[in-house]
Amino acid sequence: MMKLSELGEFGLIDVIQRIAEKSRNPRYDSWRQLLVGIGDDAAAWQSGNYIQLATTDTLVQDIHFDLSVISWRELGWKAMAVNLSDIAAMGGIPEYALISLALPGELEVEDISAFCQGMIELADKFEVAIAGGNLASSPNVVITITVTGRSKDNRILKRSTAIPGEQIAVTGFLGLSAAGLKMLQEKAKLDDETINILRQAHLRPTPRIKEGQLLLQQGVNAAIDISDGLVADLDHLCQASKVNAKIEIDKVPVHPSVKANFPDYQELALSGGEEYELVFTADKVTMEKVKRALDCPVSVIGEITDENLPARVTLVNSKGNTVTPTKAGWEHFKNEVPKTKVA
Amino acid sequence: MMKLSELGEFGLIDVIQRIAEKSRNPRYDSWRQLLVGIGDDAAAWQSGNYIQLATTDTLVQDIHFDLSVISWRELGWKAMAVNLSDIAAMGGIPEYALISLALPGELEVEDISAFCQGMIELADKFEVAIAGGNLASSPNVVITITVTGRSKDNRILKRSTAIPGEQIAVTGFLGLSAAGLKMLQEKAKLDDETINILRQAHLRPTPRIKEGQLLLQQGVNAAIDISDGLVADLDHLCQASKVNAKIEIDKVPVHPSVKANFPDYQELALSGGEEYELVFTADKVTMEKVKRALDCPVSVIGEITDENLPARVTLVNSKGNTVTPTKAGWEHFKNEVPKTKVA
Repeated sequence: MMKLSELGEFGLIDVIQRIAEKSRNPRYDSWRQLLVGIGDDAAAWQSGNYIQLATTDTLVQDIHFDLSVISWRELGWKAMAVNLSDIAAMGGIPEYALISLALPGELEVEDISAFCQGMIELADKFEVAIAGGNLASSPNVVITITVTGRSKDNRILKRSTAIPGEQIAVTGFLGLSAAGLKMLQEKAKLDDETINILRQAHLRPTPRIKEGQLLLQQGVNAAIDISDGLVADLDHLCQASKVNAKIEIDKVPVHPSVKANFPDYQELALSGGEEYELVFTADKVTMEKVKRALDCPVSVIGEITDENLPARVTLVNSKGNTVTPTKAGWEHFKNEVPKTKVA
Repeated sequence: MMKLSELGEFGLIDVIQRIAEKSRNPRYDSWRQLLVGIGDDAAAWQSGNYIQLATTDTLVQDIHFDLSVISWRELGWKAMAVNLSDIAAMGGIPEYALISLALPGELEVEDISAFCQGMIELADKFEVAIAGGNLASSPNVVITITVTGRSKDNRILKRSTAIPGEQIAVTGFLGLSAAGLKMLQEKAKLDDETINILRQAHLRPTPRIKEGQLLLQQGVNAAIDISDGLVADLDHLCQASKVNAKIEIDKVPVHPSVKANFPDYQELALSGGEEYELVFTADKVTMEKVKRALDCPVSVIGEITDENLPARVTLVNSKGNTVTPTKAGWEHFKNEVPKTKVA
């Protein structure tokens, strides 16, 4: 007998994936048309001449969010953002959202209204319609949003398509969300502009929907969004693609506000979760096209390799020496201590 | 300031529906193609020449289930059944499931495997593929399953299409699930066959997928599944259709095992939730065709009317006198006392 806390989140995903795979039946239309099952950012299946996408994410009170630092309106926005980011990581067009709320009866109606306002504010930005959901009473707040979407043409980004020799790049700057949480938890005194940037990054992230679609258009095939942390999510991508990755830590684009105010900025950028930036891989020529096509910064931070390295993701400093990350990414069941996801 | 427990589940659905409707934007493809939004068993939108369906349901530990009476395998089956029943109520073909599990780290891996086995056992029966999901740690077990599906042709069953003059009918027998829960909670001593029937009904219900599709084929337009209780769910259907209903309580098909063993059998059949039978409306000619087409019992229990009655659902006895139900259906936030959904 083994407990979930011993096996960990990713071990349990493997167990469930094996059970689901065993039930795969090629005589069923559903299984035959399934293109991406358990183990990517979103599920994908063929539906006529486009690909249908669906993703679901749960936020649990005191595990993913702390109501003493996040407002209900921000929570609504964030719960939607987390799901839209999974559609972004597939390069898809989000379409519909189903909202499942498990809530204590003593909550105020006004707070839930504010939650819905925040959620819809972001949904509207990306033309997503709220199509339905479910309400249930519960001792603690548990929010599950499911977002469906579709491919623009008949192609999607996947985790499993990275190829040795490709460059690895990220959109935007890293470390912001983790620094934002740290600031909120430690009530750090920073200048107003920094507070604003960090708060926004942690509580009101904007998923890279347009960027995901542009990546596909420019010929990129492999991507993942950063929800568990750069190194952890790149590890997921490498595992799915059966390749290794080498990252030059000095090339990781740490945001100036993080660098200036947090001595542990490198750790925040490498291991901080909930960034909702995209990590992707592409050959040199495609990468140049991507840099021109995207409005946001695109930083090449390393390369995909089939070299036999000690870890799937190896970090090297400017001198070419291997460095060991001081902190792993987030893993549910194993990390039970922190009050919110990015500790 | 009002608490959810004062407003109740259905009041909160109204609030959320209003907020979502206000954000409706006919310039967006998503909103334009949405056929059924918040307030039916499943969401529905046009997708090429068929209708796409999606539904989500959450089961919360100690609200919807009690791990001292339900096994993990049964829980997996039931969590899937609840969602498939919503697709059945739309007359749809279920296709894919996304599984979101919020779980305490101290749970055994074996138990979660058993849960998945139970869930997949039922999914496989209806050719549903497990396409993805999400795992998170949580102090209590919260299970959210989302099932997508599609219409066979370009038609679906809805709550909002009942017409005055139509007959009201139900599939199967009622009272079984509520009697099953009562038996399990009170550790009632019954004969083995009865125990078996009641246990099965409460813990391993089979959604009426085939029946829902056949109803559509025979020309039925309006249906709902019984998850909150016959009277409560018929009330939802009447509200959506802006009609009233008259039920002859003596025609409600109480299962013989319930009648023989539970003095309050009528209450169990009228108010017991989690039956997962279908209530539907149709004209006389269509109803006769339905009776011939379906393998299960079909009982006409009353009729839809536009008479101005004191309640949306009026119960009459064999003498034609109005009777008042002793118990309302389940409503989240308002019913906080019982340990499981059917008290």
